[in-house]
Amino acid sequence: MTNKATTVSIINVTSYMGADLARLLFRHPAVQIVSVTGRSEAGKRLGIVMPHLAALDMTIDTEPKEAELVFSSLPHKASAEVVMRLIDKGCKVIDLSADFRLKDVAEYQEWYQFSHPASELLRDAVYGLTELHRFEVAEAKLVANPGCYPTGAILAMAPAVKAGLIQNDIIVDSKSGISGAGRTLSMAGHFAEANESAAAYSLEGHRHLPEMVQELSAAQGRPVTVTFVPHLVPMTRGILTSCYASLASISPPTVGEVRQMYRDFYQDEPFVKVVEAPPHTKHTWGSNLCLVYPAIDERTNRLVVISCLDNLVKGGSGQAVQNMNLMLGFPETMGLEALPVYP
Amino acid sequence: MTNKATTVSIINVTSYMGADLARLLFRHPAVQIVSVTGRSEAGKRLGIVMPHLAALDMTIDTEPKEAELVFSSLPHKASAEVVMRLIDKGCKVIDLSADFRLKDVAEYQEWYQFSHPASELLRDAVYGLTELHRFEVAEAKLVANPGCYPTGAILAMAPAVKAGLIQNDIIVDSKSGISGAGRTLSMAGHFAEANESAAAYSLEGHRHLPEMVQELSAAQGRPVTVTFVPHLVPMTRGILTSCYASLASISPPTVGEVRQMYRDFYQDEPFVKVVEAPPHTKHTWGSNLCLVYPAIDERTNRLVVISCLDNLVKGGSGQAVQNMNLMLGFPETMGLEALPVYP
Amino acid sequence: MTNKATTVSIINVTSYMGADLARLLFRHPAVQIVSVTGRSEAGKRLGIVMPHLAALDMTIDTEPKEAELVFSSLPHKASAEVVMRLIDKGCKVIDLSADFRLKDVAEYQEWYQFSHPASELLRDAVYGLTELHRFEVAEAKLVANPGCYPTGAILAMAPAVKAGLIQNDIIVDSKSGISGAGRTLSMAGHFAEANESAAAYSLEGHRHLPEMVQELSAAQGRPVTVTFVPHLVPMTRGILTSCYASLASISPPTVGEVRQMYRDFYQDEPFVKVVEAPPHTKHTWGSNLCLVYPAIDERTNRLVVISCLDNLVKGGSGQAVQNMNLMLGFPETMGLEALPVYP
Amino acid sequence: MTNKATTVSIINVTSYMGADLARLLFRHPAVQIVSVTGRSEAGKRLGIVMPHLAALDMTIDTEPKEAELVFSSLPHKASAEVVMRLIDKGCKVIDLSADFRLKDVAEYQEWYQFSHPASELLRDAVYGLTELHRFEVAEAKLVANPGCYPTGAILAMAPAVKAGLIQNDIIVDSKSGISGAGRTLSMAGHFAEANESAAAYSLEGHRHLPEMVQELSAAQGRPVTVTFVPHLVPMTRGILTSCYASLASISPPTVGEVRQMYRDFYQDEPFVKVVEAPPHTKHTWGSNLCLVYPAIDERTNRLVVISCLDNLVKGGSGQAVQNMNLMLGFPETMGLEALPVYP
Repeated sequence: MTNKATTVSIINVTSYMGADLARLLFRHPAVQIVSVTGRSEAGKRLGIVMPHLAALDMTIDTEPKEAELVFSSLPHKASAEVVMRLIDKGCKVIDLSADFRLKDVAEYQEWYQFSHPASELLRDAVYGLTELHRFEVAEAKLVANPGCYPTGAILAMAPAVKAGLIQNDIIVDSKSGISGAGRTLSMAGHFAEANESAAAYSLEGHRHLPEMVQELSAAQGRPVTVTFVPHLVPMTRGILTSCYASLASISPPTVGEVRQMYRDFYQDEPFVKVVEAPPHTKHTWGSNLCLVYPAIDERTNRLVVISCLDNLVKGGSGQAVQNMNLMLGFPETMGLEALPVYP
Repeated sequence: MTNKATTVSIINVTSYMGADLARLLFRHPAVQIVSVTGRSEAGKRLGIVMPHLAALDMTIDTEPKEAELVFSSLPHKASAEVVMRLIDKGCKVIDLSADFRLKDVAEYQEWYQFSHPASELLRDAVYGLTELHRFEVAEAKLVANPGCYPTGAILAMAPAVKAGLIQNDIIVDSKSGISGAGRTLSMAGHFAEANESAAAYSLEGHRHLPEMVQELSAAQGRPVTVTFVPHLVPMTRGILTSCYASLASISPPTVGEVRQMYRDFYQDEPFVKVVEAPPHTKHTWGSNLCLVYPAIDERTNRLVVISCLDNLVKGGSGQAVQNMNLMLGFPETMGLEALPVYP
Repeated sequence: MTNKATTVSIINVTSYMGADLARLLFRHPAVQIVSVTGRSEAGKRLGIVMPHLAALDMTIDTEPKEAELVFSSLPHKASAEVVMRLIDKGCKVIDLSADFRLKDVAEYQEWYQFSHPASELLRDAVYGLTELHRFEVAEAKLVANPGCYPTGAILAMAPAVKAGLIQNDIIVDSKSGISGAGRTLSMAGHFAEANESAAAYSLEGHRHLPEMVQELSAAQGRPVTVTFVPHLVPMTRGILTSCYASLASISPPTVGEVRQMYRDFYQDEPFVKVVEAPPHTKHTWGSNLCLVYPAIDERTNRLVVISCLDNLVKGGSGQAVQNMNLMLGFPETMGLEALPVYP
Repeated sequence: MTNKATTVSIINVTSYMGADLARLLFRHPAVQIVSVTGRSEAGKRLGIVMPHLAALDMTIDTEPKEAELVFSSLPHKASAEVVMRLIDKGCKVIDLSADFRLKDVAEYQEWYQFSHPASELLRDAVYGLTELHRFEVAEAKLVANPGCYPTGAILAMAPAVKAGLIQNDIIVDSKSGISGAGRTLSMAGHFAEANESAAAYSLEGHRHLPEMVQELSAAQGRPVTVTFVPHLVPMTRGILTSCYASLASISPPTVGEVRQMYRDFYQDEPFVKVVEAPPHTKHTWGSNLCLVYPAIDERTNRLVVISCLDNLVKGGSGQAVQNMNLMLGFPETMGLEALPVYP
């Protein structure tokens, strides 16, 4: 095994994102986790709070130890304040909260109801959807790890949007497992309520919408509008996203041509795969894969793209490790090679 | 209890639809189940094959006994042949297969790959979406019980379509429990494959699409196009449907006005309820309810309507009993009064 | 429909037990729910808090209205105080908490850590396992509705215990759905924690143990010891209980004789069925049935009895309605005739 | 990465056990999978049949290519025939079927209804419960990989049995996820039947019973009797086993002493952990861990031990890789270091 010479810390390891980071980083050959922090659980052994992490043999700290790179898995607003201090100290930071994802500072007031404390950092922060911003990520001091829904939606639509294949109005219908809502208790996440049930939520506008609009508009070069409706379905991990958009031309390409365009777009990507049949979220379970399946509804001249991923891995901690690898000069796939666990 | 004087038979009681019919009819105060048939299980006690129906104390027959009304829960094509004979004998029939739902005989060749043996019956058969065809159902000899997906989609969109609120192009994204695929074994329905997974299917065109197009076009008075993508999610019962359509006017009604329009449309309906928050499929579990929630995405001037129901009840056996009540002159809600089982 | 002339109230309708009582009683032909109470949700419409109960069209009260019979679904200790007052006022009461189940007042200190405020009521309260105490229930002013686990375990073992078939030492291994832990949020009930997981708990002694010991000892006429280990499995409703006990005789009866003894014991019972194959909890889903399957392990001369039930119905609200019917002079099965919902 | 110089083949990769072997071995640093075989799927690309294994980029063969070690994941009886030929050719073999687990050839007739074709191999085959037979495994040409249920039960009870702590009569009550029944379609594994249900099965005697008896008797030095009742619960992976046995002495050790004895017994084991709280199957999900929790029911002087594992990993493919490592001289944990995926 490579010398684990590079130090990292995880802030808020007791969140699902933080815990999954710990799982992945523990097996990463080049980095050493030097501290993990929690809030209410500080002082306890990590293996007591999270038995599957007992092998890490660590105690949950209140404050992160100094490290070359720090992951923050705090909730939004709380994260910004901590990240500012870490950047000041010269740490590289990957923030898994939303606090540095949006370029327009006014959107924080609108969508998150707080006045952003570090608008100057917003400029330098890189939106860490690795496949779209690989080179900026490699140079970044601060990476804003994307939301789980935007990762699936943007990867599904980026090839079509960049190629001008569709009209600039996209419907994104996502089905998420319950872990996406985190480890904080809520009635919506209570087993007896969530099991044997499916429901839409946030129809008035979900906080992940502005990320999608920002990134797809940037990819397109002009404004893209998005209707985004998230749904909860009774599973722990996974997001399935179905995207719908009218084709731009009335003499559209064949589905074969569209698939080839998608395959070309993602041909060198280790983690995004264009597949030949509608993918199941389970095909990505526990891995950093995102599967993409484009189709055309010829009856309505509409592009339909299905994507899926594990919301806690490619939709969170895995993509964070992928970004870390770039920021620290490691091979992009290092520590992320495990295949999905199936069934 | 009313005298159970009216006789009914259930063909193919060993399907999930057939079994749920037996469950409901056993408690119906005015009808008597005189026979239930099965194919591979004929000759066995019903309570051995379906332990929850042990109280019926019946044997599975090969052929249905004569009855005033017969339910056919056979697969398509097989059903048409049996239904023809029953109609000839003078029975009233409710067919839960697709064999009499479509008015255009050519569609059977296109969607179901068979030449329909009784095109003359197609004319007289009534599409049994009760809320839209109540009076024809009451007069019918043959009712074609709607598919589970169309029931949810049409009830979601009918008020908007009839009012001319939207443009004639609708996206229907449905999430179904696994029981919708029936009791026949398949890899897609294997627990280890279906659990912790979500997937789209039939992107090339699902057989329930022409029903939606037929009924929504009829409601509108001119052709409506529909993109329909069904999805499987890991639950047993329930369909959640999210419908998307651009508003017809650029000065559209408020969401309050739309909700009032929906409430007016369904105000006297015992089984369709317009709700004030996004509904959960679990709110309908085991009952004949369909819940409808209209919303407007003001950013894109788009109507979004969520509906949900129990695919085996309002999406099948419950609606069949509702239709039977009308055909036999009983109160429409008779035998369907049970509340959803929750949680 | 019979005139709904008898009045009932439900205290703490917002618990799962309370809500399921409301579901059943709403369809009961002879009683009228005159009030439902809640704690944090008082003042709200019942249909907002519990959408599946919207048809009741009631507001959640703080205090129960006067009624002939009151159900208390409060937690233990809180329930005793309310029940005392209701009994003083002359109401009949069915208490779904543990507060009047144990005959020995000292056990409340040991198992529930409180000093019982009404030990004199303990004497008169009837343990409402209907099949064992039918006549006392019919005469009772106060019925202590049994715990969900004891219902399944006692019904599984009572025939063997009464017949002296086994040695007086029983192992009870129960597998419960998550709704048994109630609607209060907890990490153990969080979907992402409970799904795809099974675990034992309360190995140091679960509060339902003394009920089992009390009732089985009374059935036997001398002390019975019980090892009871409850487990959580990822389903919403249902308890499967596997009981193990050594046969008393070294020339034991055949399994056929044991099954006949069980069938004889339960032959007139409307809700307890001795079945011919290992039962599935799903065969009882939503109904008041308890299925019992006795077997003999000839290799070890041991009786094994499997039972299953819906923890919220026969394990709670359904058995409460069964008891209510006896207390009020209605047919025992009234309002409980619905078959299980399957699948 | 070490040179992947050692060749292995997997027979019947399309079973769940075979597929999980492929997943683990693909990431093993010292072995190279040279062929995978299937039966009905031969000739297809592995990634089409099992999308999560697309990265292996292999075609499913009819016959295994020559390799230093071959895993057989065929069903019993079919496996014995193939294994005989491979041993003749000089391959090392790990058989995941039951065909070489039992030492007494007569038991194959009794439990598996076939006449064993290679009784001479039974003598040399090593029962691959690694923790009990580490040294024999290291020397073996043929390892019989244990059943999933016996792995959990034997690891739970071996310390107590070896120490003479209990009487020689054990009750094993196991709760298994559905993947244990394999990928072959069956009504018991149909999602709509298995979900929201729990059931016992094989009460007349499950085929894994003789393995338990054989190994626990060998550990004890005299015959041990076992009552074993397996149950299906609605999850994909995981077995939770609860074992019950009366303590041998009437002045038994304290629970602290028992836990210390268990900790001592497993102190150097990389994959068996004695835990301080009742373990959840989810704490082992996807990993090769087995967690063991001993307790004492002082009321009945009975030892209760809970164990859990992932039935496809420590209960199958992971233990097979652990055995392979010993047989080939690699570190025992190689390729098995991944932590459980949680939640």
